[in-house]
Amino acid sequence: MSGPDEIEQVLTEVFDEASRATDGEPASYIPELSAVDPDLFGLSICDADGNMTRRGDADHAFTIQSVSKVLSHLCVLACLDDDTIAERVGVEPTGEDYDSIIKLDHHKRPFNPMVNAGAIAVTDLLMSAHGEKALEKTLAVYARLLGRENVEIDDAVFQSEQRTGERNRAIAHLLKNFGLIDHPVEDVLALYFKHCSVRVTTQDLARLGAVLARHGRAPGSDEVLLDTECVRKALSVMFSCGMYNYAGQWIYEVGLPAKSGVSGCVLIVAPGRMGVGVYSPRVDARGSSVRGVLAGRLLSERLNLHLLSGA
Amino acid sequence: MSGPDEIEQVLTEVFDEASRATDGEPASYIPELSAVDPDLFGLSICDADGNMTRRGDADHAFTIQSVSKVLSHLCVLACLDDDTIAERVGVEPTGEDYDSIIKLDHHKRPFNPMVNAGAIAVTDLLMSAHGEKALEKTLAVYARLLGRENVEIDDAVFQSEQRTGERNRAIAHLLKNFGLIDHPVEDVLALYFKHCSVRVTTQDLARLGAVLARHGRAPGSDEVLLDTECVRKALSVMFSCGMYNYAGQWIYEVGLPAKSGVSGCVLIVAPGRMGVGVYSPRVDARGSSVRGVLAGRLLSERLNLHLLSGA
Amino acid sequence: MSGPDEIEQVLTEVFDEASRATDGEPASYIPELSAVDPDLFGLSICDADGNMTRRGDADHAFTIQSVSKVLSHLCVLACLDDDTIAERVGVEPTGEDYDSIIKLDHHKRPFNPMVNAGAIAVTDLLMSAHGEKALEKTLAVYARLLGRENVEIDDAVFQSEQRTGERNRAIAHLLKNFGLIDHPVEDVLALYFKHCSVRVTTQDLARLGAVLARHGRAPGSDEVLLDTECVRKALSVMFSCGMYNYAGQWIYEVGLPAKSGVSGCVLIVAPGRMGVGVYSPRVDARGSSVRGVLAGRLLSERLNLHLLSGA
Amino acid sequence: MSGPDEIEQVLTEVFDEASRATDGEPASYIPELSAVDPDLFGLSICDADGNMTRRGDADHAFTIQSVSKVLSHLCVLACLDDDTIAERVGVEPTGEDYDSIIKLDHHKRPFNPMVNAGAIAVTDLLMSAHGEKALEKTLAVYARLLGRENVEIDDAVFQSEQRTGERNRAIAHLLKNFGLIDHPVEDVLALYFKHCSVRVTTQDLARLGAVLARHGRAPGSDEVLLDTECVRKALSVMFSCGMYNYAGQWIYEVGLPAKSGVSGCVLIVAPGRMGVGVYSPRVDARGSSVRGVLAGRLLSERLNLHLLSGA
Repeated sequence: MSGPDEIEQVLTEVFDEASRATDGEPASYIPELSAVDPDLFGLSICDADGNMTRRGDADHAFTIQSVSKVLSHLCVLACLDDDTIAERVGVEPTGEDYDSIIKLDHHKRPFNPMVNAGAIAVTDLLMSAHGEKALEKTLAVYARLLGRENVEIDDAVFQSEQRTGERNRAIAHLLKNFGLIDHPVEDVLALYFKHCSVRVTTQDLARLGAVLARHGRAPGSDEVLLDTECVRKALSVMFSCGMYNYAGQWIYEVGLPAKSGVSGCVLIVAPGRMGVGVYSPRVDARGSSVRGVLAGRLLSERLNLHLLSGA
Repeated sequence: MSGPDEIEQVLTEVFDEASRATDGEPASYIPELSAVDPDLFGLSICDADGNMTRRGDADHAFTIQSVSKVLSHLCVLACLDDDTIAERVGVEPTGEDYDSIIKLDHHKRPFNPMVNAGAIAVTDLLMSAHGEKALEKTLAVYARLLGRENVEIDDAVFQSEQRTGERNRAIAHLLKNFGLIDHPVEDVLALYFKHCSVRVTTQDLARLGAVLARHGRAPGSDEVLLDTECVRKALSVMFSCGMYNYAGQWIYEVGLPAKSGVSGCVLIVAPGRMGVGVYSPRVDARGSSVRGVLAGRLLSERLNLHLLSGA
Repeated sequence: MSGPDEIEQVLTEVFDEASRATDGEPASYIPELSAVDPDLFGLSICDADGNMTRRGDADHAFTIQSVSKVLSHLCVLACLDDDTIAERVGVEPTGEDYDSIIKLDHHKRPFNPMVNAGAIAVTDLLMSAHGEKALEKTLAVYARLLGRENVEIDDAVFQSEQRTGERNRAIAHLLKNFGLIDHPVEDVLALYFKHCSVRVTTQDLARLGAVLARHGRAPGSDEVLLDTECVRKALSVMFSCGMYNYAGQWIYEVGLPAKSGVSGCVLIVAPGRMGVGVYSPRVDARGSSVRGVLAGRLLSERLNLHLLSGA
Repeated sequence: MSGPDEIEQVLTEVFDEASRATDGEPASYIPELSAVDPDLFGLSICDADGNMTRRGDADHAFTIQSVSKVLSHLCVLACLDDDTIAERVGVEPTGEDYDSIIKLDHHKRPFNPMVNAGAIAVTDLLMSAHGEKALEKTLAVYARLLGRENVEIDDAVFQSEQRTGERNRAIAHLLKNFGLIDHPVEDVLALYFKHCSVRVTTQDLARLGAVLARHGRAPGSDEVLLDTECVRKALSVMFSCGMYNYAGQWIYEVGLPAKSGVSGCVLIVAPGRMGVGVYSPRVDARGSSVRGVLAGRLLSERLNLHLLSGA
């Protein structure tokens, strides 16, 4: 097991090594994301005892984007049973989705909660569970798991997503067509875009990762923030579906549940060990942070975090 | 070649034979279509000289539905050049589309103007070409080709399509996402749904078919209604893409350009010979009129209409 | 209709124009094909009266390759009924086959007789129909339709195909697995490769095309070489499936049944009008002769041959 | 952690519960598999200390079938580096393979070593690594990991696979076509079929599972049988690709590396904890033992073995 000293040393190495990667560009589909300094790079680790280790722009705030899918999935696992959820969304990776724009599975469901279609269906379920308080209640869960008093939404990003989100609008109307969302399309999308626009830092993500690594307990405490079962299910889905369509390669090389967001952030969970938050806005062709993916690979290797490594 | 007497006799046989088919059900996705008498059956042939032969409910009016795709395609061929159209929609059959809900081709274009996505892109092109007069101008073309003073829109069907058309809404937003439609999604859909809701009879369709069979001239007259080139292109697309995804089987067995609509209508064109309009609301799993498809097959065989038959 | 003089003049123009295309390279998967002079170019037209018009290397002999699929399909249509054939092979175009190496349809059948899998299934059917005389009997049909006393097999090409045909071997074993061929894989492949290795000239192909254009009668004669029904079926399949996966584009632009072979030959049929044979070994990415495809397009346009053009 | 007593008790429960499942039928593609008593049911657990717990027909011998893929993968990981292997086979799950018979990835490689195509490519690599001694050397590894003096091949099963294996023959010729196997197809298949025909009991599988659970060390000993790295890689591939195409569901519910064989056997590995071997010849539509899959699910739940459960 890695003590704080080992983590300190490895983190320095990994930060330096990953800093050298300069491939990729910030996402450009909305001006708010493309205008960012591409060289920002933050890295935080929160261990099981709650010790936080930071490098670089660890406190720079960015929008959480697709990492919100993990939080929304946890919210829905906390308030609805498996069967209800399974009517609306599956748990399978999508495969390499090159021949279809909006892919649903054989039951016409989204493949899993880590892709946009699945997260939109999950958002609708949260509206059914919480009614008018859906935003308030879900943001309260977000805050608690991120270790914050409260979370704020980046309004410029939210407005921009609203304005340009034709692909998500297409997905939502298709889900509506198949009876997979119950609320008006624009209401569901508004909540979904708000979740994506929550502002976080790598420390917040590391802390969230540490909660998951501790199977629901707050780092360095016995406080139970999440039910163990919910965490197991959320981590399972992150593991098989979190890192895009290359489930196999990620499991082979890194072997850890993870989720990336197009703003350049990555959340990585090493069960029993630590949570990791990375931020670097240069993303690859699939929308994952180049340095984030590299840092994940190096940390797994150097700290022997691979779930099947026998450490 | 078939004279009026032969047509009379064969039409009687085919009508009787096709009447016996009682498979299928009227389309049920909107109440206006499902409420129809399922046993209605009309059949009209208009030959090159303009002679009209009718059987059954030949004058019963119904909404034209997807046969409007042929008319809108003709409208766009008449006012825009091939390259402009090709930027927005292709001319390939889709193949058997069982693994994807909204399929675009490698250029992210709709496959062809006979599928909903392609017809929606065509509708947007018509709006660009005609501006605020798009509805007026296109309906004038519709009327001229159907041999009518003017055409009317079935408002109940139009409203119902508007209300329930989530799948088409999804398609339109996806096209918007790829920059394949220039106007607001709801405006394009409104025009598209209006085109689908035009009321016609089998006689109208037979007359339209005869215009196409005469490569653009009015039946029994030298009046040129359409440019020969446009007709060739429209018939080519009907031939390869008109009858759903079973292009090969239809070419093999019937060998004629055709298009069906979910209300139960079928338009068939025998180039140089005649136009055929069929109406029978019981549709098969793919949304084609059961009696309409059967009548097409029998007429092709009995009147030796197959384009590759050497008649 | 085009008289001999018009054909002479257009053929000169088209030959000159197509000569300028120098894209593509001869197929290289076997040395016998790649060693050919890439600038060879022959073009022959045989009209309905049997008049032969030639340009360039019209008498240069080459192996027929995939154009044999048309001849073998005609052979099987002549001796077996539709249902027996339909148990083994369909009549649908394959679609753009980019995601699967060996594609079978929903019934696990090859899509059509114009792709290798379908032609191998057809070859097996010919062995069942003719027993030990299959080679002899089919080559007699080949000779009769090509207008020759007898045909010869290019043994070097045959041996080379045998040696390197791992993809066809894979296809044949898969067909065997699904019970779609009855004879030993190597026996079926030997006959299939022999059919592909038959030596022909563009004149032979033009004459074959003229027989099909006359729906089975010998050009300039009343002699019936093929049943009209068989010709209709064979032309239908060539029309929808003959020019690779771009059925729609070919029908849109050229509008004629055709089949190309990887040696650089193309057979084109203008029903009621003429047969065309082209040979030019530079092939495009899909294995079709660049000049052959271009010549087809130009001839269709200049001689107004498009089946839906109203000529 | 589960002590021997807890294992004893849970195993009794799980054996009883799984015994009640009577769905499925023995595989029928060769007579040797279909002739078996369908009610056979054996279950063995080997814990990290080497304690073996058994129920039912734990000593009944059967052919290992696809579980040999794990052993052959371990053999190749032991003697070749990752890059050499990656030229021939990937590590991605195939997705739900319903539209393609023989699916290769974008590099024309088999998706992973757990599907037939991948295992055949691995077999060819073993022939390259070991030359004429490939059978001898690999069976020595098999024996060592199964905890046996030596292993024997079921000759009747081997002969039957040889005779009927047209699908595998098709795969091998396709791999040959793409240069993914270097040896003659029939030689590679003979070795592949021999590996599949090795006779084992559930105790052998449990012991193999325990070696993997101990990351390469013999159960109850410090003897190193496999390199830790190789075990991590093999377990990663089993985890993402071992249980057919439902990677996501298996990870969600059971969360353990596993591999099933069509004879009705399942190998399950609980890292750090135990190996499980199951045998029950009734298989489901995907060829997995019905009781084997059920036993895996129940054991994971009752013994809290899910890798992401926080136990």
